[in-house]
Amino acid sequence: MISVDEALERLRSSNRVLVDTETIDLRDSLGRVLAADIVSAVNVPPADNSAMDGYALRCEDWPGPDHALEISQRITAGTPPVPLQQGTAARIFTGAEIPPGADVVVMQENCKTDGRCVWINAIREVGGNIRPKGQDVRHGAIVLNAGHRLRAQDMGMIASLGIARIAVLRRLKVAIISTGEELVEPGNKAGPGQIYNSNRYLLEALLKNWGFEVMDFGITADDPKIISDVMSEASRKTDAIITTGGVSVGEEDHVKAVVESLGRIELWRVAIKPGKPFAFGEVLGTPFLGLPGNPVSAFVTALVMVRPFLFDCQGVSHADIVPLRQIALFDKKGSARQEYLRTRSGSNGVEIFEQQSSGVLYSTTWGDGMVVQRAGEDITKGSMVDVIPYVLFN
Amino acid sequence: MISVDEALERLRSSNRVLVDTETIDLRDSLGRVLAADIVSAVNVPPADNSAMDGYALRCEDWPGPDHALEISQRITAGTPPVPLQQGTAARIFTGAEIPPGADVVVMQENCKTDGRCVWINAIREVGGNIRPKGQDVRHGAIVLNAGHRLRAQDMGMIASLGIARIAVLRRLKVAIISTGEELVEPGNKAGPGQIYNSNRYLLEALLKNWGFEVMDFGITADDPKIISDVMSEASRKTDAIITTGGVSVGEEDHVKAVVESLGRIELWRVAIKPGKPFAFGEVLGTPFLGLPGNPVSAFVTALVMVRPFLFDCQGVSHADIVPLRQIALFDKKGSARQEYLRTRSGSNGVEIFEQQSSGVLYSTTWGDGMVVQRAGEDITKGSMVDVIPYVLFN
Repeated sequence: MISVDEALERLRSSNRVLVDTETIDLRDSLGRVLAADIVSAVNVPPADNSAMDGYALRCEDWPGPDHALEISQRITAGTPPVPLQQGTAARIFTGAEIPPGADVVVMQENCKTDGRCVWINAIREVGGNIRPKGQDVRHGAIVLNAGHRLRAQDMGMIASLGIARIAVLRRLKVAIISTGEELVEPGNKAGPGQIYNSNRYLLEALLKNWGFEVMDFGITADDPKIISDVMSEASRKTDAIITTGGVSVGEEDHVKAVVESLGRIELWRVAIKPGKPFAFGEVLGTPFLGLPGNPVSAFVTALVMVRPFLFDCQGVSHADIVPLRQIALFDKKGSARQEYLRTRSGSNGVEIFEQQSSGVLYSTTWGDGMVVQRAGEDITKGSMVDVIPYVLFN
Repeated sequence: MISVDEALERLRSSNRVLVDTETIDLRDSLGRVLAADIVSAVNVPPADNSAMDGYALRCEDWPGPDHALEISQRITAGTPPVPLQQGTAARIFTGAEIPPGADVVVMQENCKTDGRCVWINAIREVGGNIRPKGQDVRHGAIVLNAGHRLRAQDMGMIASLGIARIAVLRRLKVAIISTGEELVEPGNKAGPGQIYNSNRYLLEALLKNWGFEVMDFGITADDPKIISDVMSEASRKTDAIITTGGVSVGEEDHVKAVVESLGRIELWRVAIKPGKPFAFGEVLGTPFLGLPGNPVSAFVTALVMVRPFLFDCQGVSHADIVPLRQIALFDKKGSARQEYLRTRSGSNGVEIFEQQSSGVLYSTTWGDGMVVQRAGEDITKGSMVDVIPYVLFN
């Protein structure tokens, strides 16, 4: 057996996929990956502006609380100001540009006015209530780096720089091929010995959520010729091929022979539970990842192994996940493999789903994350453990 | 000022939106909300099946390690077995159905065979290596509840029950209206006193990520007639209206008067930072939420206030977020408001972005989450604080 870390190292060091760049509307960019740094061509804010509704003046001109200043202009957000007449104040609103000559804004709660003049109780130091030009972002600053996956706030940030179209990496295309004579699609009647194909739904949703384009090749019969045709087509049309089932050491597995004849395959026994058998190779130059047919094993290996590999292929710079630490509410003996226990977190700690058999897909829907239990490490109630909420895999 | 909790309580208790049910393909259901419980009409697995590649037999028939059993049938996954002939073994593969009469599977590593007969070194107790029928899900069990937002593994689970179409709640339709004469859309040239409209991009992405349908009404001029027309149209076409800007107490804010004339508006001063001014009401019967124009304030109030309200409207049953606990790597005095500090988490603890001014949108893109600092509570380096990674808001 090889460790999870070693398997990941082998997978990720072999990555040779490079996706093209395309230019898209910022509005369509959620979850897309930047192909180039975002460099600001503007200052944000573009000019000094008021943080308050109030009055702008020059500190030196303040005559004290008992004397009035004439209100010489009125500046709303979006209206360009004129230079401030010496010895006067400007009525000003939040976000409005500070007029040349003013160096402080007094909030209106500290003022009295008769509409023509203003009496100011107290002023702050020079610069008070003024948001300086370039405070948020300076002209020329790198705001986001190439390889960053865009979130809502990143899109807001880019918009605030005046940028409406951006260069991103083309979505990675991923093929899903389900193998197994026993599989039948949901919506049909399952005969004796048949089970429903759940991996296809599970994997397609995971891959789409990660921002990839998915080509689903359905269920392929356990026939070498058919598997070979489907694999060849997938290698021409996609950037990576994922299969489920068909890569254990059983006699009925034809995937291995086919991949060998079209490229190269390594069968790994990874010290991961659930999920031990894992195949890696290439089909006519396209990376090939063979997951176990068992849905829980397919789910866990997709999160732990497939995700970082495909994110590398997609050009994502930070695909690694840092587990959280939480108190275990259960005891669990360690095993020879690194276990991904399906769990649920609460304010008191993390509890385990009682049935951890890899056949029980319900263990993944019951909870909200997984505890990572290292090989040979026992977990005792009350100890701190590593937890990965499923949302961290988004 | 009212507390964040009180504001949330008022918002959420006033919710009257009910969305219809629609039936969709399971494949399109990622992020959708179940309109009804998912009840299993099948057992998963549908029959006892083998957890291993090996040999199925009746424990009683085992003749000991030195005597062979005849191999009377060969059962692959997907092939219905025939009843096991007494005193024989069946060759069986992982996932294949156990033949009537057999009560144990021996893994092939514990067997020798000449192709016709099998010698078995040792057997396990009755039931060994057999995954019992209904182990994952029993017929009639509720697998997922109405109000659940579907994740990839939930879709796999539903597929495993043979269900291909499901009843979900129609996507909530949300209107976004940006107000402010100073706003200009990205891609255009910003004149003096103008700033780019970032809220539209930020909010649209957040709302779409939450599974809502977004109708964007663009930037509305600071003109009561125009605002009124846009609001009326939005109330006819959507389930909820969100505005940014125009609800502070400044003289230039027309939104308040318009909403008052078309329905009802409350202006709240919420003890939240960033984000104090918040408007809530209705426009011709449609809920109205008025966010601050400042992008950081809009972002924080969208996550903290808008998200739970809209998830309630959408029928999501579990919209609440449980913060994580992490060590603070910074000192920060408390204030009169509950602060949402923009932070970044590492393995040593959580660090703060130095510039917490609400004008600095970059504070939200720099990091990966927020520390919640309660009103009046000081944070000292080394103490435990509540952290909400942004991904938890997904």
